[in-house]
Amino acid sequence: MKEVTIAEIGNYVGQEVALNGWVYNIRSIGKIWFLIFRDGTGLLQCVVVKSEVDSDTFEMETKLTQESSVRVTGTVRAEPRAVGGFELGIKSIAIFQIAKDYPISPKEHGTAFLMDHRHLWIRSKKQHAILRIRHQVIKACRDFFDQNGFTLVDTPIFTANAVEGTTNLFAVDYFDRSAYLTQSGQLYGEAGAMAFGKIYCFGPTFRAEKSKTRRHLTEFWMVEPEIAFCDLDKDMDWAEKLVAYIVQWCLDHCGTELKTLERDISKLEKVKAPFPRITYAEAVEILTKNGVDFEFGNDFGGNDETIISEQFDCPVMVHRWPAEIKAFYMKRDAENDDLALGVDMLAPEGYGEIIGGGQREDDYDILVKRIEEAGLPLKPFQWYLDLRRYGSVPHAGFGLGIERTVAWISGIRHIRETIPFPRTIYRLEP
Amino acid sequence: MKEVTIAEIGNYVGQEVALNGWVYNIRSIGKIWFLIFRDGTGLLQCVVVKSEVDSDTFEMETKLTQESSVRVTGTVRAEPRAVGGFELGIKSIAIFQIAKDYPISPKEHGTAFLMDHRHLWIRSKKQHAILRIRHQVIKACRDFFDQNGFTLVDTPIFTANAVEGTTNLFAVDYFDRSAYLTQSGQLYGEAGAMAFGKIYCFGPTFRAEKSKTRRHLTEFWMVEPEIAFCDLDKDMDWAEKLVAYIVQWCLDHCGTELKTLERDISKLEKVKAPFPRITYAEAVEILTKNGVDFEFGNDFGGNDETIISEQFDCPVMVHRWPAEIKAFYMKRDAENDDLALGVDMLAPEGYGEIIGGGQREDDYDILVKRIEEAGLPLKPFQWYLDLRRYGSVPHAGFGLGIERTVAWISGIRHIRETIPFPRTIYRLEP
Repeated sequence: MKEVTIAEIGNYVGQEVALNGWVYNIRSIGKIWFLIFRDGTGLLQCVVVKSEVDSDTFEMETKLTQESSVRVTGTVRAEPRAVGGFELGIKSIAIFQIAKDYPISPKEHGTAFLMDHRHLWIRSKKQHAILRIRHQVIKACRDFFDQNGFTLVDTPIFTANAVEGTTNLFAVDYFDRSAYLTQSGQLYGEAGAMAFGKIYCFGPTFRAEKSKTRRHLTEFWMVEPEIAFCDLDKDMDWAEKLVAYIVQWCLDHCGTELKTLERDISKLEKVKAPFPRITYAEAVEILTKNGVDFEFGNDFGGNDETIISEQFDCPVMVHRWPAEIKAFYMKRDAENDDLALGVDMLAPEGYGEIIGGGQREDDYDILVKRIEEAGLPLKPFQWYLDLRRYGSVPHAGFGLGIERTVAWISGIRHIRETIPFPRTIYRLEP
Repeated sequence: MKEVTIAEIGNYVGQEVALNGWVYNIRSIGKIWFLIFRDGTGLLQCVVVKSEVDSDTFEMETKLTQESSVRVTGTVRAEPRAVGGFELGIKSIAIFQIAKDYPISPKEHGTAFLMDHRHLWIRSKKQHAILRIRHQVIKACRDFFDQNGFTLVDTPIFTANAVEGTTNLFAVDYFDRSAYLTQSGQLYGEAGAMAFGKIYCFGPTFRAEKSKTRRHLTEFWMVEPEIAFCDLDKDMDWAEKLVAYIVQWCLDHCGTELKTLERDISKLEKVKAPFPRITYAEAVEILTKNGVDFEFGNDFGGNDETIISEQFDCPVMVHRWPAEIKAFYMKRDAENDDLALGVDMLAPEGYGEIIGGGQREDDYDILVKRIEEAGLPLKPFQWYLDLRRYGSVPHAGFGLGIERTVAWISGIRHIRETIPFPRTIYRLEP
């Protein structure tokens, strides 16, 4: 008999098929009972009718428990009222294993309990949907860069120096010395851009932040393009094209998941390039107009970001920042040396910053000066300075945070639900 | 003027275009000189003819140095004798920056010197080709799984326990405790397979191995599928389908790079599923027949692997291993309890093991027994045991090492050249 998955069941209407999976739920109405069945690709209503099966099968209603593993066979029927639009008229059920006392019941559980059972919680409808969206967000990022001539350059996780201090860095015992876990692949990505023109790196990054807010994980994933012969304007072009592509891809491929999450699709449908671009100064004006007591020159907090982003339907790009609050490697604005050519992209609906980036300083002498001004040692930057010694070119790039992007697209407030096994200051398990 | 890349230049024959990039080399024959130009997407011969350009441009021959950054404009011509089949008749050259004393000259350099200049070395033709192949190998892996209904489940890098000892683990200072960097996503992948049916994880993994052989990096990338309702035979089906797909993809998309590396393509063209499958016992027989003094029950060394793999044109899968030398979670052969249902895939031409995997023990009681027999504590495995408590099913998976696969396809002996910034016991920089 043909073995199929729920995802493809629409191709087998009228045929007898077999499926392997798990019991999601059971409902009874007397001489008929319903097995809501999951196989990882979706949910399927299976109908067990007393007159159509042998008594052993019919009596399984009392045996089968939530998350028991089973093989079901039966005939596929179109059924508009059922989840997914199809149902299975059961012929037989074979049991792999009966699950006893599955800990996650349909009743409400606290977050700590669910996180302690994360290895099981990911089977639940909502978590399942978020992580499927995560997969498609990542696929969209990679496809976008692959289709646009970028080369993947995996940057290292182990780095040798904690040049900007060890405060937010994780230290590793590396044989007879210490290594530090990467916070960004950018500097290495710049070397890659000089070799390949346009590159992206994509991997986990780490921040030992003692923050307990809903926006921070110690381990999170970033995709970071870096582009030779690119200025701030073109950098913003790439950023908006990428984000518009991701959103459209998810609208096209995650309809079921977005519905499960009751996401307001109309909000996502408005996300089309070009996105609004405002200067830092204009962003501060928005805050002042909205009654925020904000001091010019500071960085924006979460609430500030929310107020700014709520002015727009699309993600908004804030550029030209006070140089003092941005990194040493940012190029300054030719028209105002106090401004760094950086850009942050804020997601709509208060989901906060999803992209940070900008144009890099490409002049050797100025970069040396910046490193010295920042009070950093020159020695560990010699290889990075080589990129300005040997064929320096204007270049720019940015990093997109995967978890925050998934949170926004899914409409989920806690980024800890946007990664399969979240790591925070208090959580290393499961 | 249209700005184009070398990769797409074939579309612009007869047209005037501009390209941004770097000087790769310069050759002179008197009233004509050739600029070999690179832009990250390829190499292009640019011809500067005295009678066709102004004197400033013609005199740039003496100014331009290796790796200087330039913008060239000119007319595209078909030229079968030139690299890539096209050349540019130069009209003008604008200089971004003159590179002084670029350290990597066409002369021979030692490996340590080149590795110290890895951030520049990746611009060289051969390294560039290897890393482009790496990109396509990774893309092929992801596409393969995406097209076959697998869900990407990123498994955590930080893990809480060093249950099998800390010998090969990197320890991290994690706030008030220790964490360890993952060596494999498998156990978490199994949780993913129970939620999504078929999953893969893909990320960096870490081994604090004090090994200096050419086969070991401390940081390397692995793709690890895990499949519910899958036995050892089906696991081998997936493994051979994946590897055949990767090789075919590279043959179809990396022709230029394989040619640059002078790879014997005919060897790769023979790699078609099905691959040979032999038992461990049969592999030992091969060794004995070839005069190796091998003790049954041991693991194979590098030389053993080479001898076994040289018997076949395709990668060979060695299955059913002595249980004592395999991990506790491997399911035993129903017909011989001393054998574990594991499989290693050895690449041809002596490139060694590229895949390790097998069927997992899915019975709760047996798994508890195995953990105890291995002298491991039960507590940190409680979440893993939950996968056998709640809807356990037969399942299997494997891990494919990206660097070894790239080394094999590229025909490169040292895996340190298969990753942009290799990390070894002695190397954390650049």
